[in-house]
Amino acid sequence: MAGKRVLIVGGVAGGATCAARLRRLDENAEIVVFERGYYVSYANCGLPYFVGNVIERESKLLLASPDLFRERFRIEVRVRNEVIGIDRRSRCVVVRDVDSGREYRESYDALVLSPGAAPVRPAWPGIDLPGIYTLRTLADSEDIRDWIEAKGVRRAVVVGGGFIGLEMAENLVRRGMEITIVEAAEQVMPLLDAEMAEYVRRRVASKVARLHLGDGAAGFEAGADGGLVVRTAAGERFGADLVILAMGVRPENQLARAAGLDIGRCGGIRVDETMRTSDPAIWAVGDAVEIRSRLTGRWGLMPLAGPANRQGRVAADSICGRRSRFAGVQGTAVCGVFGLTAALTGETEKTLESAGIGDFRTVYVHPGHHAGYYPGAKTIHMKLLFREPDGLVLGAQAVGEEGVERRIDVIAMAIESGATVFDLEEVELCYAPQYGSARDAVNMAGMAAANVVRGDVGLAEWSEMESGDGFLLDVREVDEVRESPIEGAVNIPLGQLRGRVSELPREREIWVVCRAGRRSYYACRVLTQQGFRARNLSGGYRTYEALCGGEGARVCAK
Amino acid sequence: MAGKRVLIVGGVAGGATCAARLRRLDENAEIVVFERGYYVSYANCGLPYFVGNVIERESKLLLASPDLFRERFRIEVRVRNEVIGIDRRSRCVVVRDVDSGREYRESYDALVLSPGAAPVRPAWPGIDLPGIYTLRTLADSEDIRDWIEAKGVRRAVVVGGGFIGLEMAENLVRRGMEITIVEAAEQVMPLLDAEMAEYVRRRVASKVARLHLGDGAAGFEAGADGGLVVRTAAGERFGADLVILAMGVRPENQLARAAGLDIGRCGGIRVDETMRTSDPAIWAVGDAVEIRSRLTGRWGLMPLAGPANRQGRVAADSICGRRSRFAGVQGTAVCGVFGLTAALTGETEKTLESAGIGDFRTVYVHPGHHAGYYPGAKTIHMKLLFREPDGLVLGAQAVGEEGVERRIDVIAMAIESGATVFDLEEVELCYAPQYGSARDAVNMAGMAAANVVRGDVGLAEWSEMESGDGFLLDVREVDEVRESPIEGAVNIPLGQLRGRVSELPREREIWVVCRAGRRSYYACRVLTQQGFRARNLSGGYRTYEALCGGEGARVCAK
Repeated sequence: MAGKRVLIVGGVAGGATCAARLRRLDENAEIVVFERGYYVSYANCGLPYFVGNVIERESKLLLASPDLFRERFRIEVRVRNEVIGIDRRSRCVVVRDVDSGREYRESYDALVLSPGAAPVRPAWPGIDLPGIYTLRTLADSEDIRDWIEAKGVRRAVVVGGGFIGLEMAENLVRRGMEITIVEAAEQVMPLLDAEMAEYVRRRVASKVARLHLGDGAAGFEAGADGGLVVRTAAGERFGADLVILAMGVRPENQLARAAGLDIGRCGGIRVDETMRTSDPAIWAVGDAVEIRSRLTGRWGLMPLAGPANRQGRVAADSICGRRSRFAGVQGTAVCGVFGLTAALTGETEKTLESAGIGDFRTVYVHPGHHAGYYPGAKTIHMKLLFREPDGLVLGAQAVGEEGVERRIDVIAMAIESGATVFDLEEVELCYAPQYGSARDAVNMAGMAAANVVRGDVGLAEWSEMESGDGFLLDVREVDEVRESPIEGAVNIPLGQLRGRVSELPREREIWVVCRAGRRSYYACRVLTQQGFRARNLSGGYRTYEALCGGEGARVCAK
Repeated sequence: MAGKRVLIVGGVAGGATCAARLRRLDENAEIVVFERGYYVSYANCGLPYFVGNVIERESKLLLASPDLFRERFRIEVRVRNEVIGIDRRSRCVVVRDVDSGREYRESYDALVLSPGAAPVRPAWPGIDLPGIYTLRTLADSEDIRDWIEAKGVRRAVVVGGGFIGLEMAENLVRRGMEITIVEAAEQVMPLLDAEMAEYVRRRVASKVARLHLGDGAAGFEAGADGGLVVRTAAGERFGADLVILAMGVRPENQLARAAGLDIGRCGGIRVDETMRTSDPAIWAVGDAVEIRSRLTGRWGLMPLAGPANRQGRVAADSICGRRSRFAGVQGTAVCGVFGLTAALTGETEKTLESAGIGDFRTVYVHPGHHAGYYPGAKTIHMKLLFREPDGLVLGAQAVGEEGVERRIDVIAMAIESGATVFDLEEVELCYAPQYGSARDAVNMAGMAAANVVRGDVGLAEWSEMESGDGFLLDVREVDEVRESPIEGAVNIPLGQLRGRVSELPREREIWVVCRAGRRSYYACRVLTQQGFRARNLSGGYRTYEALCGGEGARVCAK
């Protein structure tokens, strides 16, 4: 009994998952995977750590071999075979054997495109000089390792301060190099909102030789010492023995485009909820496709391994006649750099604003990752975004040394199930002194937001501070204020507030600030009940210093 | 303007939270907290770590002083003042000043009972001998520390192998003592299902001198060496210089009972969803009350800090006329012991069975806490319980060295928001090599369960293995089977299965097992499509060995 014939283009992440799922659903299907590289199913998220010798053996990164696919799943994998054309009318692909150059055709009943994305490599002057690398494949990481050994690299420039750029910077520091990071944006980790990225910026700046923000690379030259020189748009010059380009990726859409499939505005292959392209016999998954945000419905690119795997499953289901759907991407991501973890899920202020969504609010909290009375508690800086009328959780970002990914995962689950800030306030999380607090960081963020939604406290936006309309009241203790003042604020410690309300103006709105936003909330409750109009500056001094202290400063821009 | 007068009995956890929340809601209320001990608002979850010198200073445990309550909240705290009677008709309490013995009355508009729970201290022979302690208050921990110093304690017996008992054992080992744990149940951590507790038992057994299960303590004698002897029900005798009784707590219900308030079957004060007792002017919160399970609606006791705090908030809301409700307890808890973390949320097999709920299923998974290709991945043993028809998540338990509390927190959030196993399968969690996997442990558990709910694979219950009805097929590799055989199983490695199906009986059901339950699932898919009746033994060998290897064995009981 001959089954349907499914061809899969690309054997990493989405493609590999799709193939294995197809086999589980259909013992009779004939499944062939084409991969132009040497390897299938390898862990490309591990490549920076292979370069950094944290992962010591390449074999660790190879998750499944062609042999395993054949033995376990009866799936044929053809490495070094590149699909170079699709004849949609006859349902055939044209394949080139990379080594022999031979071209041949294969017919399909269903075709799955999982070609991935290619690193951005701009056509700048000198881009082809030796020693300039991108990092996407296992072969790339081998090349970089060989170059480091061969040239005895001591200085490297990383172009791009996003997740991969910072991971690379950390791993090159680990190998003893002096690192310069060059990033066109005013902040590191552009996925994060600027004030949250500020915590990361400080840490990175303290660990690399140079963190050069707000001025992107623009070209390369051969240096007098036999190395390279990286030139920036503003004319700065940085010497290097190695340059890593980490400027993001672009979907590999050439094959789909040439075949006349719909391509989205961001350059990704357009698919429906079953991962089917504009051709009903062709599906596409992974970094090459354009997907919708789960929360805003907005199309975008989100090259992440988790969604790629799920898309592979959905495509397999769809090919086998099952009604699975990919509900959109949440955008959960995490990055570890120099002992700090930064993570996010859902929407950011940036993505909400660019989607034209305005009915959201923001709270900040700075709790410890476990009870403060147990030694070693580390601060988590957390930002929570929620919808104003009903408290629907829209997104969260967190930065800290411990427990960051845990809190973001909990909020990812909340977003997955359409939870509100009231659920975050109430959810019962693990508490023992070394693991958490009776009020966990997530509860704290939920309470801060729920207080706003319930109308118990109004939020003053930090961006309003510039206007000077409000009377800025700082309720910290006198010695706290002395150590870290807030410009233009009048200090009345919370404990003295009830006895000193006569010092406050009744005709102006009072914006209250403290260290982390809790005492100021208490103060707002006191003042509101005494007939004042009071609003809380969420996150207190600890958010203020992130907003104003860094190169990513917005509120207090000089 | 005189506000309402609210009296609060007990100034720890629920009582303290209630008082502070009351003030935020009502500037005019007169709020008085009575605490018979020396301290209010201290961290009793930290006491074992204070005994173990992990927390070095007592002052660390004092979260808020009476002065802070007065200054910040205008709340009067009377320590060493015990409420000894309630005159409900006249809305008065009778208070005794513990130091002077003076008794006096105070009237209330609203009364909040937060007396906590007292440690179980059975009337066994010798129970009053010196050196036998319970641990509930700061004073208890001081007494134990003093005794250890004064007597130079070298050997201790901990009576009770639950969370507190094991935390105490760990902390006493930390101080260099030789520890015997005596527990009447056949397992440690009786909150967990037996096979999950087995992972903990092994670790504890390797770290203490003696772990004595299935035979409880029954009495104490003075030993010949000036120490103590602990006698068990079966007649064993263990010498000790110190005995810690960690046998759980009982709600402090005397005051409520004497006042004629409704008491539940488990001995806790009965309250409605607003934490109001059977007297409309009296509320009760914390360890003294009986509460419903959020999932089963069953009444029970759940002495946990998180719920106590939330109950305090709800009571304050209710007193101020707000419509908050306490939706019931999830039972999320975590315990760290000898480098291992055990955590649970929601229902267990035990609680579901005792609630008479049968339409649930169980899956086990054993994933790494992060990607296996990154060094240092630690196994998480996880059990997920879900409702059979619709996949509603009912509960989870996990044990491992890293990342356990994170996964349980995610599932706690899922339960909070009524999520299903399909949500667990789909949720997008943090993935970078050092933080997780493209398929996180939670996704893995969700997939294993979703496959069952969708009908893609049937589950064979481990307890059925005894019946011998099924044909037991082990699809691991030959060398894996040689190293750790499963009794009565026929071995055909997965890679050879398609070619060897003729060796399998068509008339019998085939129960498939592998190492962790994944290859056996693949095998089930192969066999089912080839017309066999096949079911998966969830969790594979790694669950088998926990079920059969330990003293908590059920399936393979000798």
